[in-house]
This record gives sequence, structure tokens and C-alpha cells, in this order.
Amino acid sequence: MLTLYDYLPSQNGYKIRLLLSHLGRPYRSEYVSIFEGHGQRPAYLAVNPTGAVPAIRLDDGRTLAESNAILQFLADGTRYLPGDAFGRAKVAQWLSFEADYVQATMGSLRYWTLTGKLPQRPPALLQMKRDGGLRALAALDRELASRPFLLGDDYTIADLSVFAYGHLAGDAGLPLDGFGHVLAWIERVRAQPGFVPTVHPYAIDPHSTAELP
Amino acid sequence: MLTLYDYLPSQNGYKIRLLLSHLGRPYRSEYVSIFEGHGQRPAYLAVNPTGAVPAIRLDDGRTLAESNAILQFLADGTRYLPGDAFGRAKVAQWLSFEADYVQATMGSLRYWTLTGKLPQRPPALLQMKRDGGLRALAALDRELASRPFLLGDDYTIADLSVFAYGHLAGDAGLPLDGFGHVLAWIERVRAQPGFVPTVHPYAIDPHSTAELP
Repeated sequence: MLTLYDYLPSQNGYKIRLLLSHLGRPYRSEYVSIFEGHGQRPAYLAVNPTGAVPAIRLDDGRTLAESNAILQFLADGTRYLPGDAFGRAKVAQWLSFEADYVQATMGSLRYWTLTGKLPQRPPALLQMKRDGGLRALAALDRELASRPFLLGDDYTIADLSVFAYGHLAGDAGLPLDGFGHVLAWIERVRAQPGFVPTVHPYAIDPHSTAELP
Repeated sequence: MLTLYDYLPSQNGYKIRLLLSHLGRPYRSEYVSIFEGHGQRPAYLAVNPTGAVPAIRLDDGRTLAESNAILQFLADGTRYLPGDAFGRAKVAQWLSFEADYVQATMGSLRYWTLTGKLPQRPPALLQMKRDGGLRALAALDRELASRPFLLGDDYTIADLSVFAYGHLAGDAGLPLDGFGHVLAWIERVRAQPGFVPTVHPYAIDPHSTAELP
């Protein structure tokens, strides 16, 4: 059975949980206490050289890291990833957008907010991240004005990935009120079969996740 | 014929030039003067919602952006990208690593150095980027200690992508001297058929690139 190395406060971990729920695919979870530094233990660095979650282990022992790469692997051959080279690459374009313009802006801001590190960050850096996040939301809003999902008519892992941090922009201090097309798209994502909401971080005691089932 | 939207100082543009050279595939270039803000013109935003280079346009008018997505598309079906789902995903893992840990650290530092913006950046931010870049180089060095290329015996677009900014770490103030496995790998990349070096930015007048052939 597939093993998912996960950490409940991680939205990158949520991406994989959400896809596996859409697919109805069983898996076992192994929790890595990132906040306690367990990602940097040698045994886990052998799974993922960066020490980050999520990662997966297949039955034959092969491992794969980076949430967007795992999404591409698990969605291969399913309705959540186009089968042709151009469609797959268009999904990869949006996964790059997610990493560089969504996760790197509102993902960082949200993480620093939730962990209390925000006041220690240089104000100029926070402003760069906020400006970048707002530009990303504006680009998404423009794109989603003309079609229901990022690739067109069908929900794919491109939407799933951008949704993970995107729908929580408010946690990063970037209210979504002005982005009507993004808000409507969020509701379309929530209506997908097998959708599960993320675990709200305030409901998690990070120190206990290593023992969670 | 394939159109490449490019800008010569861009190492992300170089990635595509290098792959097309490996493939011996003809293309025409259209230059977008990023430093002069031409990426934000509406005509180009229709090609790439973020306004960044590179992007490509196919004969049928379809466009694709984000360097790592373009690499995956152009390498599909060639020796530079495995044909199986796991191999493709493993390449995607390293492309995510490139974006998050190489480009986001030494790529930013190099860009600020070359454009003279470094002194305007908060020192704490520069330190975060330098620390992150050194961690990325250490992870690469560990990985490349056991195999010639990131995926194993064969050079793929994973190597090509990491090479683009990675081999210029010195421009970002991160000398490669201590990373022997990375240095040996750089020479193996340079020995690949069809390899072309990047254009050194000091040899470019950015204001003239719009007129280059």
C-alpha cells in the first residue's frame, strides 16, 4: 500500500491527501514532525534530499518527493491529468505558477503568520511577498474569468494545487473579496466528488501529530 | 516553426535554448525586453499570464509558459525525458527542487547582483537566500556522490534545468569550490552532444536584445 510521509499543518501534504480522496485510493500515513526538525534526520533525508514533506513510498521501495511531482505521478492515467503531452505540460505550467507565485508568496506569509515568525521578517520582504501574492491573485482572476477551471472545462491537479494555498490567502493577510472569479472557482473546486477540506492549523497540536493514526 | 519568446540575460530562457540545441530543433526567437517592462504588455500577458520569459508558441497558435513546463513538453518522447510515469515524476521532483531551492536562492541573488539591486535588499533576506543556496548545493553534492546524473546514468532535463542557475552559483556569491561532486557533474553536462554555453550577461547590452536575430 502507498505510504504518504505527511505533516498535518502542511498544505503541500493536503494536496496529496485531497487527490487520494478524489481517487478513493487507500494509503497509510507516516508523520514527520517538521516543526521539531525531524525532516533533517538522515533516515528522512534518504527519502527526500530537502527534508520537506510530503513524499511517498511505493510498494517496491521507490520514493518520490515534491508535492507537485507526486500529484503528477498519482494523477497519471486518471481524469485529473490530461493524457497528451501538451495537456500535461499545460498542467506543469500551472504547477510552476503555484510554486513560484502562490506558494512562494501567500504560502510563506501564512506560514510565518501561523508560527508567529512574521514580526521577525524584514518589512521590505513582507511587502514583496504581499505584492507578489496580489499579482498572482489578479492573474488567476483574469484567467478564470473566461473558463471554469485552469485548463478549461475540466478540474485537474492544476486547480487542486493552486487551491491548496490559494483558498487560504486570507490566512496570509490577503483577503479574496475583490477576486470574484477566484471565489467562484473555489466553490467549484469544493463541489468536486471526493473533496475533503484541509485540517485547520488552529485545530492541530503540531507536537502530537507524530502519534496521529 | 516553433517560436521561442526569450530574453538573452535570462537563464530560464537559456534552458530552452540549450534543450533545442541538444535536439537540433530549429526555431525562431522573439525577444521580450523584460528589463524595460515589455513582459507586462497586454499582448504578452496573453501569452504568459505572469509576463515572464520564456514561453513558446506552436504552429497551431497554442502557447506554453514556465521554463520547466516547456522543457517537459519539448523533451517528451526524446532521450532527455523518461517515458514512464515514475521517471517523468522523478524529473518533475528535480524541476520543483530547481525552482524552489536553486532558482529561488542563487537565481535571485545573481539577478540582484547583475542588476545592482543587491544593496537595496534587506540583509536578513540576503542571508536567507545564501543559506538556502548553500543547503541546495550541499543536497546536490550528496545526491551526485552516488551517480553521474540526477536520475541515474542518463542526462535528462532535470540536470539541464538545475545546471542553468547552478553552474553560475559563483555569480550569486556562492563559490562552488567545496562541492566536488557538483563540479564534476558540471563537466559531464558540458560534455553532452549539442551543448551550448550560456550568453554571459556582461557581454549583453539588454537594451539591444529586442533587435538581436
